[in-house]
This record gives sequence, C-alpha cells and structure tokens, in this order.
Amino acid sequence: MASSLLSRQLAFCLQNNLRLSAPASRYVSKVAPKAQMDFEYDGPSMKTQVPGPRSQALTKQLGEIQNVAAINFFCNYEESRGNYLVDVDGNRMLDVYTQISSIPIGYNHPSLLQVMANPSNLSAFVNRPALGILPPESFPDKLSESLMSVAPRGMSRVQTMACGSCSNENAYKAIFIWYRNKERGHGEPSELELESCMVNQTPGCPELSILSFMGGFHGRTMGCLATTHSKAIHKVDIPSFDWPSAPFPTLKYPLAEHERENAQEEARCLEETEDLIVKWRQKGKPVAGIIIEPIQAEGGDNHASPSFFKGLREIAAKHGAAFHVDEVQTGGGSTGKFWAHEHWGLDDPADIVSFSKKLLTGGFYMKNELQSEKAYRIFNTWMGDPSKNLYLCEVLNVIRRENLLDEVTRSGHALLTGLTELQNQYPLILSRARGQGTFCAITVCNEATRNKLIQMTRNKGALLGGCGDTSIRFRPSLVFKEHHVHMFLNIFSDVMARMK
Amino acid sequence: MASSLLSRQLAFCLQNNLRLSAPASRYVSKVAPKAQMDFEYDGPSMKTQVPGPRSQALTKQLGEIQNVAAINFFCNYEESRGNYLVDVDGNRMLDVYTQISSIPIGYNHPSLLQVMANPSNLSAFVNRPALGILPPESFPDKLSESLMSVAPRGMSRVQTMACGSCSNENAYKAIFIWYRNKERGHGEPSELELESCMVNQTPGCPELSILSFMGGFHGRTMGCLATTHSKAIHKVDIPSFDWPSAPFPTLKYPLAEHERENAQEEARCLEETEDLIVKWRQKGKPVAGIIIEPIQAEGGDNHASPSFFKGLREIAAKHGAAFHVDEVQTGGGSTGKFWAHEHWGLDDPADIVSFSKKLLTGGFYMKNELQSEKAYRIFNTWMGDPSKNLYLCEVLNVIRRENLLDEVTRSGHALLTGLTELQNQYPLILSRARGQGTFCAITVCNEATRNKLIQMTRNKGALLGGCGDTSIRFRPSLVFKEHHVHMFLNIFSDVMARMK
Repeated sequence: MASSLLSRQLAFCLQNNLRLSAPASRYVSKVAPKAQMDFEYDGPSMKTQVPGPRSQALTKQLGEIQNVAAINFFCNYEESRGNYLVDVDGNRMLDVYTQISSIPIGYNHPSLLQVMANPSNLSAFVNRPALGILPPESFPDKLSESLMSVAPRGMSRVQTMACGSCSNENAYKAIFIWYRNKERGHGEPSELELESCMVNQTPGCPELSILSFMGGFHGRTMGCLATTHSKAIHKVDIPSFDWPSAPFPTLKYPLAEHERENAQEEARCLEETEDLIVKWRQKGKPVAGIIIEPIQAEGGDNHASPSFFKGLREIAAKHGAAFHVDEVQTGGGSTGKFWAHEHWGLDDPADIVSFSKKLLTGGFYMKNELQSEKAYRIFNTWMGDPSKNLYLCEVLNVIRRENLLDEVTRSGHALLTGLTELQNQYPLILSRARGQGTFCAITVCNEATRNKLIQMTRNKGALLGGCGDTSIRFRPSLVFKEHHVHMFLNIFSDVMARMK
Repeated sequence: MASSLLSRQLAFCLQNNLRLSAPASRYVSKVAPKAQMDFEYDGPSMKTQVPGPRSQALTKQLGEIQNVAAINFFCNYEESRGNYLVDVDGNRMLDVYTQISSIPIGYNHPSLLQVMANPSNLSAFVNRPALGILPPESFPDKLSESLMSVAPRGMSRVQTMACGSCSNENAYKAIFIWYRNKERGHGEPSELELESCMVNQTPGCPELSILSFMGGFHGRTMGCLATTHSKAIHKVDIPSFDWPSAPFPTLKYPLAEHERENAQEEARCLEETEDLIVKWRQKGKPVAGIIIEPIQAEGGDNHASPSFFKGLREIAAKHGAAFHVDEVQTGGGSTGKFWAHEHWGLDDPADIVSFSKKLLTGGFYMKNELQSEKAYRIFNTWMGDPSKNLYLCEVLNVIRRENLLDEVTRSGHALLTGLTELQNQYPLILSRARGQGTFCAITVCNEATRNKLIQMTRNKGALLGGCGDTSIRFRPSLVFKEHHVHMFLNIFSDVMARMK
C-alpha cells in the first residue's frame, strides 16, 4: 500500500540520477558536485509559462466556490520531491519559497512517508483527539521527543496549537493572565471582575496592551492583527485595539559596514519603545507584553542586531512586560540555528516563544510562570494535532542525522555571496542583499520590477516570494544545498541579464 | 502496511461479535437487537476507576511540560473503535461526548482507515500546502465532493480554515469588509484609511461591532472571545471589544407545552436585540453582523424556536447586518439534519455559516456578496488542511450510505424519551430534558451533583460532558444507534438509582 509509492519514488529517484542534463542550469561551471544520491530531481524542467493552461482551468473552477485572487498555480504534490515543486502542467520548479516557508525538509521526504507506513501511527491520523482533555498515550513522550528536544533555552513548558495565529493569540492570553495575576498578587478574580468580563467590560476585561513593531507580522486573527503592521491590506476595515506600535530599526546593509549608524538607529528605536510603554501606562492601557520577530519577514526581511534585542529584553523586564519572541517564520533552522533568537547569545532571551510553519504544528513555549494554573483558560477543542507531532519527530531526526543546520549555514553563505555579487553587477536594480543562513532577501528598485523578476524567475524554473513593498525573500527548505544555490543563482543571473 | 491494522481490526470485530455478554448492560431487556455486524465492541468494560493509575502517571509526566488541569484521562486510540473509547488502563467506555462533539462516525472507522491505505492520498498528508496560493490539483473537486455537497441552502461559496476559532475570526473579518464596502459604495479605501489602519486607528480600523448573545460560545481567540459569553473563566483578564450582547431566550421545557410563555420570552429578546442595534449605532459602533448558535451548546444547551431565528434574520436584514449562523458544534448531522438551522425551514436563513469539529476541517460558507474580492484579505499560510477534506469526503459517503441522519433521528428519539422517563423518576435531581436528534441535554439540580453524576457514569462505562452551569450534554457520534442509547440509559439509570 503505502510502500508502493515509496518504491515508485525510489525508482524515479534512480532514473533521475541517471539523467545527465540539467535543463535550466546553463552556467554549469558553478554547479557544485552532488555529494550524495538525492531523493529528488536533478534540475527544473519547464513546459509552459506559469500558470499553465491546466492551472488556469483549475483556478477558474475553484473560482466558482472561493476567492482565488492569490493563487499562483495548482500543484502536483505527488510528483513533487525534495526541493522541486511540480505543477499540474508538468512544470518542475526549484522551490525557494516552500509554501511560505512551511516545508521543512522538502517534498515527499522518504522519512515522512515512512511515518504513514507505520501501522501504529494510523490511529493518530484517523482519530483526532481533544488534546486538552483526552490525549493519546504517546503524547507526553512525543512532545519530549519533538518540541521539548528543541526547546529554546529557558523555556520549560510548551503548549501546542493548530496554527500560527492561534499560537500568538493564546500566547497573548497567557501574557494577560500572567500580568493580571501579578497585579492582584495571585488571588482570585473579584466578583466584579467575573461579572463585568461577561459583557466585555472593565475591570474583568482589562485595558491591557501588547506592544509591537511597525513592519511586524504576527498573524491575522483580531488579537494578532492588532500587532501586525506590515501591509494595510491586511488591516483595513477590521476593528482593532488601541495598542502601541514602536518603530523597528531601519538599518543599512551590509550590517558590518554600518555599525555606528545602525547602533544609533537602534538606540533611537529603543528609546521610543520605552517612551511608548510609559505613555500607554499613563493612558491606562499598560503594556503587558512586547512581541517581536527576530527578523521581520512578511514586513520586508528587516534585521536588527543582538544588542538591539538585548536592549529590548531589558526594557521588557524593567517595565514588567513579558518578552514574546515570534519564531513562526524564523524558527526551525533556516537561519542556521534552530531558533533565530539563539543568534543573540543571551541566556534568557524570552518569556514566551511562538512557532508554527516548519514545526508543522503551531504552539508556544513559555517559562513556568507564564503557564496559567487553572483549567480551560488556554484551551480549545483540538489544541493542535498529534499527527503533526509524529512528522515533527521525523523532521528533527532528519535534521540531526543529516546535520542540516550546517548545510543551511553553508548554503546560506553561498546564497548571500551570490546575491551580493549580483547586486554589485546590477546596482540600479538590486540592493540590500541580507540574510542569516538561507533566510535571505534582496531589495528591488520598485514593486513592479520586483514582481516581474519573480515572474520571470518562475518561468525559468525557480519559485520565489515577495516580502515588504519591494523585496524578494528566499525561503528554501533545509535540504537546499550548495548545488541548489548555484542552480538558483544561474537561473537568477540569467533573468537579471534579460532585465537590463 | 496499513492493511495489516485493518485485518487485525476486522479480526477483533469478529471476535467481539462472537462474545455474548455485554458486561455493563444489566437491563438487557431494553437492548434493541443489533441489526448489523458493528465494527466495534459489544459493550463497555471497566477495569479501574477513571483516571486509572496509568492515566495518573501520564498526567504527572505531561504536567512537567504543560498545563494538565483539564485532562480527564489518557486514551488508547489504537484500540478504540466505533462508539467505544479505550483508555490506557484498559477501560472501555461508551463515548457519549466524542472529543467535545468532534468525532463524526466513531473511532477507527474502516472507511477512514482506507483513506490512509490509498497511496494516491499520501502526498496530501506529507506535503501540507499553502492552500491560498498553491493548492493541490484535486482541491476543487474534493471541495465540491465534500463541503459543497452539503452546503446549506443559499451558500454558494466556502473558505476552509484550520479550526473553529479561526473560522469565526475570519468570518467576522469577511463581515467587516463587506460592511465597509457597502458603506463606501464598493470604492477603494482612502489614503487616510490605509494610513490610519497601520496604527490601529479609525477610520482605517473602524469601530464596528458584532452582536452576540449571552450564553453563546463562538471560540476563544480575541475576536471570537468578544462574542463568547458562556463562562467567566474563558473571558476574565483578556482585553475585549465594546460589542453588544443580547439576551438569549430562557425557555421552558418541554417546548411544546409552554408555547405561549416561550413566545413571549422570545419576543422580549428580539425587542431587546433590536434596541441594542439602535443603541450601538448611536454609540458610533454599528452592528455589522449578528452571530448565533442554533442551539447554545457550551452555554448550556439552550434552544429557541424557528420563529425566534426567523425574527432575528429579519432584524439583521432590516439593519443591514450580516446574519452569521455558527454551526461549529451543531453542524454535521447530530440534530438529525446535516445543519441544525435547516430545522428552521427558511429559504434564506443565513449570510454566513461557520463550521468545524465533526466536519474535521474548519471554515465558513458564505453568500457571493460576502466574499472579499481582493487577494490576501482573508488569508493565512495554511488556510485549512486538504488531508482533512479527504476524510470528510469519506465521512459524508458513510453518512449517505448508512442513512445516518435517519439513525440519529431514531436514536435521538429514544434518548430523549429515556431522559424524560428518568427525569420523571428523579424530579428532584433531573429536569429540562431537551434535544434535537441526539444533540440532547438534561439539567441537574446543582453543579456538584452534575459533576458527581458525570464521574459515576464514567466509572460505570459511559463518558459524558457538562455544559452550562449544571447541565449534562449528550454528544455521541452519528453511529450511536438505538441499542447504544439503551445501553447508555441502563448505565445512567443504574447510576441514578445510587444517587438517591
């Protein structure tokens, strides 16, 4: 049954490794030797413009029953493997975007297919439990093997959730509960609080706030959305909370060449952050928590230095606010460390760390004191999905076994070097090449050119995503190796040559 | 591989059907003949008090890394089947709660295991796509086969989401966008709106509201939570929106015997609802949508008549508010119709209908006009999970093939009749037996007695859940047949006899 697909894929894999031509890799001199038999294709293969006719027909069909304005094309996931996404028109693309950065070890990884082939795992898929009340026997062990085995330093507890937004929403709730518990000295809520909260009024529903940063993205449900400030289209027409948004540093790249100016900019932002905390306390809406991404992703791949984050951590502690690091996009290894905030080198970087995407399940880590003591305060029917933990265990095994964080560091160095070279070659079009691991980006002169570049690159066999107003973000999976980097750079430089 | 579990289960099933004794079914005279060979056990079997020692040890283990205050016990999902949930201490319970009403056709249903055994389905499990941009080829067909094949009347479009809260959150966003589009005559947002929304201020983030009902439950993320009014513990300490909450009718049961009084109570609530809409408009926070459950579930299984809902629908239309029916708990067949609001008999009952739980995927249906035209306004990374649609197709096939809605109607009639008899027998303890299909409840004299009843019944082999302050809710799956009803009633009457 399940094994037949595996054998078919193995056969495919062998066939592909026997092929010698890499159709879209024209600058073959740069292609690094393939060290091992990859479980994937040997290069892109394009048959049509993308979206092709079959994708267009399916988009029309789906358009009858839902909004299709964001659809790029339709995929043949069965035929996709490793770094290659195959579409329904038979186009095979090198995937440098990986489902908005959510595929950790490529498509149809044999280790993940094995999870499905293990009969003792089937019941986890077929019987989705209400994890908060009736967890499966294996759940504590699986949590220890998966999420707790990669817990960020200082994080002793974890709560799974179904997606990134739910993770941040529930983390905010944990922060508010913790903050009010501190205020009332861990006593019980008063009768007045219990009554007033039932009709959404103070003091039961207090006027607390979460401080976030301009350009940040933390999800789209209404609590999260009040802390998201990346693009107006996400926010307009939706009621929100009067919560403070601080400036995120606008740094000059390469960071190492602009240390003094950048440090000044970061000091300015920290000062303004602290001013906002004071101001919001005076307004009667105290800041209970500060949320920040280690690299602002959706907002344009904006970086800041470890000392900025260290300063922020100190400000949070000084004002009694929880420090919440949102690793939904940065977590899982693509910066070269499992958690991007490990690059800051702090022993105690966070009170709460949220995740999703490459972790396959949403959720958040927290310190002991952030965990609500009572039942049903942080709760919902599913509280995640234990079948995703099974996959995550395997993903972590593969990362360890294949030293993928080292690979990411190597590939990331090659990618950033290549992007920097291209930027030097095309200074009127490309600028601000930046990144950590393979979590890289480059800024394009304007939005139209950025969009055109992404489209042309896709038609040449490499799939990219945009971020911010005019940037391109690179989000390959962790199995994107140096030869994939060079294959991509060949395609991209070919496209750039035609842009002139 | 997958088939070995199936054969093992088939063997189990045959063995079980050969056994003659039903250990906990003492009042055998009431047990209806089993019409067919069920793929399940023939009765509960209790080895320990629940939670037993193994559950207690696992709770302690899990307590090291997360809050376990709500955990009932740990489950052996592999050995669970049909209506029977098996725990880690070897206790086998008749499940009348089904993971907070989220298991549609019992545990390990052979048709669902077959989904896993079909190699062409594997890639949907292993490669979770970003559905909003890169859907799989089969997605439009699977949506048509699954969700669209059971779309409520008038609902032409559907959007999947990962859970119930995300479904309601995004439905509210769709309502706000629709409402503002109407207000501005479908023009583009102004520059001022686009700028102000980035810092959470009006006019970009308008002061619109959703009207909800006291006792209602619509989820726990911050938008949803502002419309949830079932229990203070869900809401206290969490900031909220100043949105109106209307009284839900407090009816007398049986409904048929109190029609005149109940109609008066419903008229009062409708009048107050309309007053609130006017008041909130005057406050500058117009009501853009009204959300209601067909039966308030978490809040205590509170019913209202079709004419109440019809009146509410008219009020929504009159005031230009969207009418949002939340079928997260009521949807999927347990009221005897696939959607509980079909019982109202209206051609045009809703503008938007949300679902999750038994549908296995979250999401919402909407009319054409509720669909936002632009990309990325209703969006997130995963937008649901297509592997859940595969299961849902099978669930719907089973419901049709086995006429499960008719079964539910029959079982529900037997259950309500039995509960009414017990209530007549124990009038000091039980009251207000009520229900539609198997979606039944009964009120207990006080909370402590209710909790004791649930615990004693569990130790006798039947699993129940509470709702509201003092009610018990019955939420069996759709394969809960008449003989299961009688088996449960036997256990429950035995417990009641000991309560005297």
